[in-house]
Amino acid sequence: MLPPDPEQETRVANHPLDPIFHPRAVAVVGASSRPGGANFVSALIEQGCETIYPVNPNADEILGLPVFPNLGAIPGPVDHVISSIPADRVEPMLEDAGAKGVRSMHFFTAGFAETGESDRLALQQRIVHRAKELNIRVFGPNCLGLYVPGSGLAFASGCPTDAGPVAFWAQSGTNANTVIYDGALRGLRFSKVVSFGNAVDVNAAELCRYALADPQTEFVGAYIEGLPDARDLFQALRELAAEKPVALLKGGMTDAGARSTRSHTASLAGSGAIWRAAATQANAVLVGSMQESIDMLVGWRFGAVPQGERVALVVGGGGLSVQGSDDIASLGLTLPDLTVATAERLRELTPIAGTSIRNPVDTQSLWRGDDLAPTLETIAADDNLDALIVQIGTSWGGAMDPGFAQKRQDRLFRELQQATPRLAKIGKPVALVIPTSHDPFTAQLSGGLLQRVIALGYPTFTSVPAAARTLQRLNTWRRRRAERAPG
Amino acid sequence: MLPPDPEQETRVANHPLDPIFHPRAVAVVGASSRPGGANFVSALIEQGCETIYPVNPNADEILGLPVFPNLGAIPGPVDHVISSIPADRVEPMLEDAGAKGVRSMHFFTAGFAETGESDRLALQQRIVHRAKELNIRVFGPNCLGLYVPGSGLAFASGCPTDAGPVAFWAQSGTNANTVIYDGALRGLRFSKVVSFGNAVDVNAAELCRYALADPQTEFVGAYIEGLPDARDLFQALRELAAEKPVALLKGGMTDAGARSTRSHTASLAGSGAIWRAAATQANAVLVGSMQESIDMLVGWRFGAVPQGERVALVVGGGGLSVQGSDDIASLGLTLPDLTVATAERLRELTPIAGTSIRNPVDTQSLWRGDDLAPTLETIAADDNLDALIVQIGTSWGGAMDPGFAQKRQDRLFRELQQATPRLAKIGKPVALVIPTSHDPFTAQLSGGLLQRVIALGYPTFTSVPAAARTLQRLNTWRRRRAERAPG
Repeated sequence: MLPPDPEQETRVANHPLDPIFHPRAVAVVGASSRPGGANFVSALIEQGCETIYPVNPNADEILGLPVFPNLGAIPGPVDHVISSIPADRVEPMLEDAGAKGVRSMHFFTAGFAETGESDRLALQQRIVHRAKELNIRVFGPNCLGLYVPGSGLAFASGCPTDAGPVAFWAQSGTNANTVIYDGALRGLRFSKVVSFGNAVDVNAAELCRYALADPQTEFVGAYIEGLPDARDLFQALRELAAEKPVALLKGGMTDAGARSTRSHTASLAGSGAIWRAAATQANAVLVGSMQESIDMLVGWRFGAVPQGERVALVVGGGGLSVQGSDDIASLGLTLPDLTVATAERLRELTPIAGTSIRNPVDTQSLWRGDDLAPTLETIAADDNLDALIVQIGTSWGGAMDPGFAQKRQDRLFRELQQATPRLAKIGKPVALVIPTSHDPFTAQLSGGLLQRVIALGYPTFTSVPAAARTLQRLNTWRRRRAERAPG
Repeated sequence: MLPPDPEQETRVANHPLDPIFHPRAVAVVGASSRPGGANFVSALIEQGCETIYPVNPNADEILGLPVFPNLGAIPGPVDHVISSIPADRVEPMLEDAGAKGVRSMHFFTAGFAETGESDRLALQQRIVHRAKELNIRVFGPNCLGLYVPGSGLAFASGCPTDAGPVAFWAQSGTNANTVIYDGALRGLRFSKVVSFGNAVDVNAAELCRYALADPQTEFVGAYIEGLPDARDLFQALRELAAEKPVALLKGGMTDAGARSTRSHTASLAGSGAIWRAAATQANAVLVGSMQESIDMLVGWRFGAVPQGERVALVVGGGGLSVQGSDDIASLGLTLPDLTVATAERLRELTPIAGTSIRNPVDTQSLWRGDDLAPTLETIAADDNLDALIVQIGTSWGGAMDPGFAQKRQDRLFRELQQATPRLAKIGKPVALVIPTSHDPFTAQLSGGLLQRVIALGYPTFTSVPAAARTLQRLNTWRRRRAERAPG
């Protein structure tokens, strides 16, 4: 976290969205005891939301909380409403909310413009119009809403309850979930995640301006399908990316994808070429998938920005060396020769058979643990290099006795732990690659190791190409930013 | 498995490698009781190899087997020898093997030409020369050797003991392991897997000619770093690919990768452009990674060859729809509109809110299980389509109660099971996407589902891009083959 900055505190306090992220009480209209019907309520309880009012005329109690027949029947103030009732019952509820002085409303409710049906588009337009008259800000419709750890807001169970420096704005609820769950497994924690669906009111441009003002947010990701005002969004992106790193995923870059954005969030996707040009101009990093979004955020968050394109690959296995080298070179990085001094020191640490001390370095220390710390320290200190990619573990399936495999993993971890302060002093990114697997034993072993190395502060990736692509993008981003720096 | 073909049985019986794949007894020279020292012995025991002789002058017993001080001391005949002694002790052992009438020798032993040192290159040359004089075929050096389920040969524990129609030839031991373990998780079973390292004798060309002759082998994958005789390999590949599908992974396609092949297997990689041209000419499918090799073999093995490029994407989630559409379109497939009849039938099955019945189809049936069978059957029957990509499950992390998640998964599986005979009758590939995860609960759940749907006969992939890339390559392969068919 950054230390508090009085100027930014003022800036965020003046932003119209900020109070919305800190509601005094939340009502969930349409909560029920049917399967899945209490999801929002349980997510809010789990996240520590203090005042939750389930609303449903046909229920008395949900998860131990008293239920109110309508918004008007709630005794205290209500700042934020989650609507999960069908679209055709939204209008009277909106009137109740207006009377109650509600500030913001999240429509989980779908079935509006994205259906492509004219009566449902008209309904959406009436709701937008009326909400504006009632001074209620709208998230959605057709989205998951707000996740703000610390304010007790969440839209799903299992979200981390501790906050962090990453904000994510997603037109898609699935993608909002993905960044929270998969991002959390990779060590990310969040200031705010907003899923904003059809974006009839709160949209990507306003959220990016908020991210710029928000002192809790250091890194920003956005998944955008379309927009009402391209010029405004590009302007907001430019302002934001000039101060904070931004990873941008654009849905609908192809014709088929663009057709799909219309069914999904009723969005006109715009031309892929324009988005590419705008992202480059803003120095926002345009990525190709949610996994790549997470990779970029992990790269920034865990200090993986290299000062150049020269990478060493360190693996345990010759086939991995060759494949990894091809992948890294194809993605625009270089694998320079190591210095003679590095090679001589590595030869002392590495038996000659079945290894290589050139770049890529193929070392048994990644299997056995022995001498991994001095091996990594020696490579990192090489002046020919800007970053290291180290692949830990591969799919050995049932090849090892579980106890033996765990012991090796533990030894490997201890070596990494030992190397960490010295690698930090050298200051070059060390990107650790830990693949996923469908094999339960491998998955459990590598998942455990992943959490332990993240706790040491390493940026982690699930494949060598993912690590290389991210380092390449981080380097380009750094270079562009340096070129634009004043003076 | 194919029914026996007398002509091919004769052809394979005449191939010089065939007896090597059926040894009467195997000796492991250099086996020991140190950690890892008995790996080959335990792999052979586990694989059901009947006669195993550990050889070590300093041991009496290994894993319950009597140990012999040298090859000459073994009472019965020895057909195949695994050498895991250091390189500088190989020469006298080779003399013993000659005296014993050994047919083939696998040098796990590394530290030869791949080290780049002249005395070790000279040693390798002496061994090759002497083995030839002694009439002993050599695998390697610097490799894992032979996995032949049914003949009791294996180089690692945890390999399936049942055989299947896939052969894989790999210069890299890691890649040989990867295809066995990761391939097995995806439903592949193998006739033979050979890791052949520096390829001083048995090489890719000879192995491809063997695959052509072998009635147990229907599909072939190869990982090749370099070769002594390009013309011969390209000729062998052309002959093989004319009869059996071949997926080819070339290590060292970039300059950095090519440098790495020299350290790994002392191979001269050759130009990437020449490999691309040769693969196209032979109609072997050139892939970019081991995962893509496995994807192709899964595609052929489980009947995922489409009759055209028109694909439907079926997902549960709007963000996935858009991203998946972009991925599929970028990879050269098309997502056509569904027919009016299909849309009408899907509307009956699919609630309007939060879904889409266009292509991509965004359906809650993939979350809830309900109506998944008729949904898939309706889409598969659409005349506008050649194949389906269906993404099952995403990363919901800790979002669900484990019991509830398992119940949904079970219902989903029952629907798939119910749809299977009807989908088989329609005859279009239905590629199922089941992602991996580092989350232990998600990994366990999806890993379990994966095995169940493979048992139903579905081709499975870990991402939409992987499925789309494979279908695109299968379609191109099919088209080229049809163009070349006589008449």
